[in-house]
Amino acid sequence: MAEQERFNQSPSFADVDLYESDRALRDAVVANGAVDEARMLAAFGRRWGAGEMAEHARLANENPPRLQAFDARGYRRDTVEFHPSYHHLLKESIGASLHCSTWTPAGERAGSPAEVSRAARFYMVAQVENGHLSAMITTRSAVAPLGAGPPVAAEMIKKVVNRHYDPSFRPWEEKFGLTLGMGVTERQGGTDLGGGATRAEPVEGGYAVTGHKWFMSAPMSDAFVVLARAPDGPTAVLVPRFRPDGGVNPIEFQRLKNKLGNRSSASAEVEFRDAFGWRLGDEGAGVRTVMEMVQLARVDCAVSSAGLMRAALSHAVHHTRHRGVFGRRLAEQPLMRAVLADLALESEAAVALAFRLVRSFDLGGESAAERMRARLLTPTAKYRIAKGAPALVAEALECLGGNGFIEDGPLPRLYREAPVNAIWEGSGNVVCLDVLRTLDRHRDEVMAVVAELAGEASDLPGVAATVAALKEAFEDPEPERVARVAVERLALLAAAAALRASGSPIAETFARTRLLGGGGITAGTSRLSVAETDRLLSRAMPE
Amino acid sequence: MAEQERFNQSPSFADVDLYESDRALRDAVVANGAVDEARMLAAFGRRWGAGEMAEHARLANENPPRLQAFDARGYRRDTVEFHPSYHHLLKESIGASLHCSTWTPAGERAGSPAEVSRAARFYMVAQVENGHLSAMITTRSAVAPLGAGPPVAAEMIKKVVNRHYDPSFRPWEEKFGLTLGMGVTERQGGTDLGGGATRAEPVEGGYAVTGHKWFMSAPMSDAFVVLARAPDGPTAVLVPRFRPDGGVNPIEFQRLKNKLGNRSSASAEVEFRDAFGWRLGDEGAGVRTVMEMVQLARVDCAVSSAGLMRAALSHAVHHTRHRGVFGRRLAEQPLMRAVLADLALESEAAVALAFRLVRSFDLGGESAAERMRARLLTPTAKYRIAKGAPALVAEALECLGGNGFIEDGPLPRLYREAPVNAIWEGSGNVVCLDVLRTLDRHRDEVMAVVAELAGEASDLPGVAATVAALKEAFEDPEPERVARVAVERLALLAAAAALRASGSPIAETFARTRLLGGGGITAGTSRLSVAETDRLLSRAMPE
Repeated sequence: MAEQERFNQSPSFADVDLYESDRALRDAVVANGAVDEARMLAAFGRRWGAGEMAEHARLANENPPRLQAFDARGYRRDTVEFHPSYHHLLKESIGASLHCSTWTPAGERAGSPAEVSRAARFYMVAQVENGHLSAMITTRSAVAPLGAGPPVAAEMIKKVVNRHYDPSFRPWEEKFGLTLGMGVTERQGGTDLGGGATRAEPVEGGYAVTGHKWFMSAPMSDAFVVLARAPDGPTAVLVPRFRPDGGVNPIEFQRLKNKLGNRSSASAEVEFRDAFGWRLGDEGAGVRTVMEMVQLARVDCAVSSAGLMRAALSHAVHHTRHRGVFGRRLAEQPLMRAVLADLALESEAAVALAFRLVRSFDLGGESAAERMRARLLTPTAKYRIAKGAPALVAEALECLGGNGFIEDGPLPRLYREAPVNAIWEGSGNVVCLDVLRTLDRHRDEVMAVVAELAGEASDLPGVAATVAALKEAFEDPEPERVARVAVERLALLAAAAALRASGSPIAETFARTRLLGGGGITAGTSRLSVAETDRLLSRAMPE
Repeated sequence: MAEQERFNQSPSFADVDLYESDRALRDAVVANGAVDEARMLAAFGRRWGAGEMAEHARLANENPPRLQAFDARGYRRDTVEFHPSYHHLLKESIGASLHCSTWTPAGERAGSPAEVSRAARFYMVAQVENGHLSAMITTRSAVAPLGAGPPVAAEMIKKVVNRHYDPSFRPWEEKFGLTLGMGVTERQGGTDLGGGATRAEPVEGGYAVTGHKWFMSAPMSDAFVVLARAPDGPTAVLVPRFRPDGGVNPIEFQRLKNKLGNRSSASAEVEFRDAFGWRLGDEGAGVRTVMEMVQLARVDCAVSSAGLMRAALSHAVHHTRHRGVFGRRLAEQPLMRAVLADLALESEAAVALAFRLVRSFDLGGESAAERMRARLLTPTAKYRIAKGAPALVAEALECLGGNGFIEDGPLPRLYREAPVNAIWEGSGNVVCLDVLRTLDRHRDEVMAVVAELAGEASDLPGVAATVAALKEAFEDPEPERVARVAVERLALLAAAAALRASGSPIAETFARTRLLGGGGITAGTSRLSVAETDRLLSRAMPE
């Protein structure tokens, strides 16, 4: 009897092709205009599916960053030290342009299929290591407000798109590649973007920023987009690590956050002490200036959570195909199959929803309808996908039994990672209120998007009832009370439409069990037919 | 402006009365025959709600146990070192007899209301620190198979009930208080209880145990109930830490599990090398001998998860009542209220379901119907409550925004803790199969329990449809495929019945939103009326 048989432990899930083995991803790439990227994505999927990358991911999380607030003589240093594996991951992701490929060197949108292609890579990387992606999210989304900045911001964009990782602590002018961070949330709040207490006072050539940020993402970046209160109101300011005279800008790192997940990356509490910065956009228009940045980051949250769900599903399917009990593989037991098929259905729907949303960003330059679709469905998809991740990962974790609870394996990290995307860039309630705000300002256009989605999914069960429930919630005299009802229904409708429009063979299953209702609360209660179950599981991963 | 106002951070949730502030708990205690315990429980609730206990809980988890496998000279030690706060918590819980109060010194059931009274204390402690409770679970449940043992086991029970914590590493004969551990799962599996590879060979006065356990709970206990293969088949063996001759029994601790949660406690991988033990029950009857132990532990899983849910809800309500945004407290915003009310509804239902189940154990001595109810609803309640905990805790965590993701606060620990009860003592699928087994062997008695539950809840909406769906699933030609459907429906029916039978004012709300369906997937989508929302939130915690 082979050693593995005797142990009855599944072999490690390594050296996988994250593209070819993922039918939902391949379908989404084809359906969303990126079929020409397939060869590149397959190579990328093999590279990130290698066991070596999983090892870097493990090491980067077991050895989280450390703050070097002071040097040996007591002078401030305000730097963060990372494990070499973190640097390796960042170098890989920057080399693959996850931080910039949706932008041209001039700071314009790169055009179709740049968004879908990047999202496919981003989704695969999130399955391996999600923490270092926060620097990719902040960099790519912060380019948006830089476009509203002075010439120096345009110079920075040219260096961002260089696809070169340079972690050295030097002025950005001396570097060939840059990353960007952002700081919005303060101790007293982050939801009310314009309510910050940090001040920006006009000085020669720019502003002096004084105050704090309670969460500053990617603190080892070369410059940060921060919100601060200027004389005319909340204003976006671009604060570099080094002042134009070459001195270190006084941005003091108080401590690093001791996070539940996302541990490979650093989030800092910082104090700005007359830190120099350039204005982005108009004074008093800060919230509007950063809104596109926030939206882009929210899309990444949705894609990232779809990746976390896929990773959890993959490990559950892999484990149960190798572990036996009562004389049969776990994955052959009817009860386990019912659970796995439900997880696969959720995972596929998340992929379809996320990638169709990303497609709207690719098409937004040419189509006002797609721009409205992006605006409406970005908070919607983030809400549903990010919120679905913790529950799905918990179920997948349970498929591994006791081993699922042990940090030596991959599931605990995915589980700890899962809540982050539901919180940052706007928690569930915040993004629901954003949907209501869009509805309030653009009711006709919003209803046109709903009609379009309903049309795409019109032959699926439950669509009419879903649209009716959605409209009822949208017309409620107290819309906030039912905002989650509306956004959830909208997300399910959009997912069904995305599946249907791409010709997915699971669209009907999704609509019947998620739109029509009648299923249960937890995975494994959807009463799928044997054929549906088999289809979902064979799509989930090649045997 | 006060410092706290300026910070807009909620004050710490400390020095709370965990009994008086918990309306659902008080109702459950009254409804389940323990009203005379109220004064004692209130004192207990204040003691465990003290800020000092929360600090011990934090310290015990930030300083997890360490294995001392060898001493400085290379001799085996096989001991585990714990932080003083862990010892403090254990001393408190043993002093409050969480490990024994359901047993008499003779190893008999203590009788009503011992189970409900202990469950109330257990539930409150779980809100503060869940890790050290694993030693309470193993000790109280392992008394059951000890009753089937030789005189030496009866002597041990007398010391277990002494309510004295003695962590010293000495033979049990020299100690005044004992704890018991258990080891069932092996590397190749834990679901098939009788499939273990560890051997027990008859020797003079007992058995020599050789083999391993992949998870051994409470490894610093004075004796362990383990399953091992004797000549006539799987057999329960009581293995003491010290042999009768006073020498250390060769139980080698290989490593401690690096757990996602439950970090204050130790779980060990162990090798038995001709370790001495006494037989419990008959040779070949090991699975039957440990089954009562497993059932008792499963009840504790359900109660513990109800406690974790309550703790998460408490922190969410507390935080949102103190944190303001857009000029209003978060807890006054309609959308947040919809979310909190749904969480409160889940939490109350979990309490009602768990405590009515525990009542069946109090009444089981006199009533065969209650024994069957306990047998059927133990896996059912464990399934539903333990599985609901991760999702509820994730939502509560999100109510705290970014702070919810930071380990300085209480939510990350609750979140990491949440999956454990769904896995150990039988994962979700395993307990569902247990329900099917009971159905298979005792169909008439099971259907009598269902009829009784339906009768208790008969005037509530959705009951008839739930019973019909349950019966359909129970009669399915492929019962495993729909086992989760059946068990989930049964759990919801039992929760509705428990709420109704106790005269709870939220019973109708629960039934309408959970049994009748039509609600959404996530918290905040139940379309509760304003009156229902207000009622749930005023019950959740006094203002």
